[in-house]
Amino acid sequence: MQLGMIGLGRMGNGMTERLREHGHDVRTYDPNVQSRTAASLEELKAQLEPQRAFWLMVPAGKITEDVFQDLLELADKGDTIVDGGNSNFHDSQRRYGEAQAKELHFIDAGVSGGIWGLEVGFCLMVGGDADPVKRVEPIFQALAPEDGYAHVGPSGAGHFVKMIHNGIEYGLMQSYAEGFEIMEHSQFALDLEQISGIWRYGSVVRSWLLELLHTAFEEHGGNLDDIAPYVEDSGEGRWTIHEAIAENVPAPVIAASLFARFASRNEINFAAKVAAALRNQFGGHAVKAVERAKAGPDPR
Amino acid sequence: MQLGMIGLGRMGNGMTERLREHGHDVRTYDPNVQSRTAASLEELKAQLEPQRAFWLMVPAGKITEDVFQDLLELADKGDTIVDGGNSNFHDSQRRYGEAQAKELHFIDAGVSGGIWGLEVGFCLMVGGDADPVKRVEPIFQALAPEDGYAHVGPSGAGHFVKMIHNGIEYGLMQSYAEGFEIMEHSQFALDLEQISGIWRYGSVVRSWLLELLHTAFEEHGGNLDDIAPYVEDSGEGRWTIHEAIAENVPAPVIAASLFARFASRNEINFAAKVAAALRNQFGGHAVKAVERAKAGPDPR
Repeated sequence: MQLGMIGLGRMGNGMTERLREHGHDVRTYDPNVQSRTAASLEELKAQLEPQRAFWLMVPAGKITEDVFQDLLELADKGDTIVDGGNSNFHDSQRRYGEAQAKELHFIDAGVSGGIWGLEVGFCLMVGGDADPVKRVEPIFQALAPEDGYAHVGPSGAGHFVKMIHNGIEYGLMQSYAEGFEIMEHSQFALDLEQISGIWRYGSVVRSWLLELLHTAFEEHGGNLDDIAPYVEDSGEGRWTIHEAIAENVPAPVIAASLFARFASRNEINFAAKVAAALRNQFGGHAVKAVERAKAGPDPR
Repeated sequence: MQLGMIGLGRMGNGMTERLREHGHDVRTYDPNVQSRTAASLEELKAQLEPQRAFWLMVPAGKITEDVFQDLLELADKGDTIVDGGNSNFHDSQRRYGEAQAKELHFIDAGVSGGIWGLEVGFCLMVGGDADPVKRVEPIFQALAPEDGYAHVGPSGAGHFVKMIHNGIEYGLMQSYAEGFEIMEHSQFALDLEQISGIWRYGSVVRSWLLELLHTAFEEHGGNLDDIAPYVEDSGEGRWTIHEAIAENVPAPVIAASLFARFASRNEINFAAKVAAALRNQFGGHAVKAVERAKAGPDPR
């Protein structure tokens, strides 16, 4: 079937390629990519026959919102907008309402698989009304590996499930991270590349993330010498904790995983300064002085 | 080669079967199992030609210690004792010393794979001296899937790595557990069997544990109605935290995963009683009264 792909970054590009390999007619638009078939959203619309399906594969947040609002103005009645980015599911529910008001369809599609999806397929969690989901289903089925796609619920459910997926991912990553740090500090001179290697076969902790970790050790060495201990996040972990709070569900491990990422970026660690100051105050315990930069002469 | 397997529980039995399929001559002893080839440790010893290899596959703790001490008395110089159970690595280091004093060899082998190992092979993490490890290697290679075995270090290293493996396992399990609980409480009527199903294909969180979770939902339904929320532990998570403390390594996720298991078994939850009592004291917040059993007449 025909699809208009908006956004040709790593994900949108891989998805376009996979869809074309499966025989779909994908027209593309990205302001910064020359391989696009259309130089504007208007041109993209003109390249598609009604009822059209547009797939947004642009960064969540302002860019997704801007393109979505442009499409709301541009699209014709009966057209479908699919958001494949990591949008907050509350935004997806709102966008569904805004689309409905214009007699457009809106589908939220959580997409997992990263840069490997082109090869093995992307796991797809789709939320929205049955009719448009049914119409776009050939696209979902081509993108996903066998049995890797489901219509999980009404509008918002797709991005909700993807949010939880990523929250779990934070916990899985931190679990491996802590285990490997304890091994790295141990009395044994362990070969972490070797250990991550054998665990891929027959162990209870085997997983795709463990395979990636083994590849990282192969590429960067067992000490990961050239990788800084600084971990970004892109929102889904935070939202997972917001939802846990909204539902009164304890989620200590996902919360600790999120906070471990914050701690990795916390250059000042004011909490540690406070704790050290208090130990000094009540118990006279020594504090470690901040080392001054040696740029100028000693002011004393 | 010849091996004396001591312990024919689910693990020892599966391992014996796998070794025989690979052509090894396994003699067996277990006080409670009729399929054994020997009715005593002495008889087992007599069925093996020197230099013998004995494999302990009995519960960690007192039983392992008792059998190990019996073997120390019984075995001849040059024989090798392999402990395949989940022993604490400090005990393995001590046993190595005790074996050395009698000119016996001792190998600690961490074994992962559970009841599935017979089919796919057991991941094996082996600690000990190079010579005896080399001698028993045909056994290790038959038990493990391809590339699923390594000699990870000196005495104790095998059980140390297995301990960390299990600590990571606690974190992985709790990560999935929290994510699925948030989904279970959500505003969407999500089909958790369906979601765990599609996540097995192409998603970042795909893993063997996720496959098992999907099987559990298939067998017990999406609400796991017949499974009580009560999680046991068998020690390795506790030891992992002991080691994190010994090495000054933060391990918040593995610790929280261990404590979540304790909480699942905490029928009284005295901490919650204390917190409720304090809210009542300082803020006059209502406390929920304990419901009395309705066995007899109301005493008022």
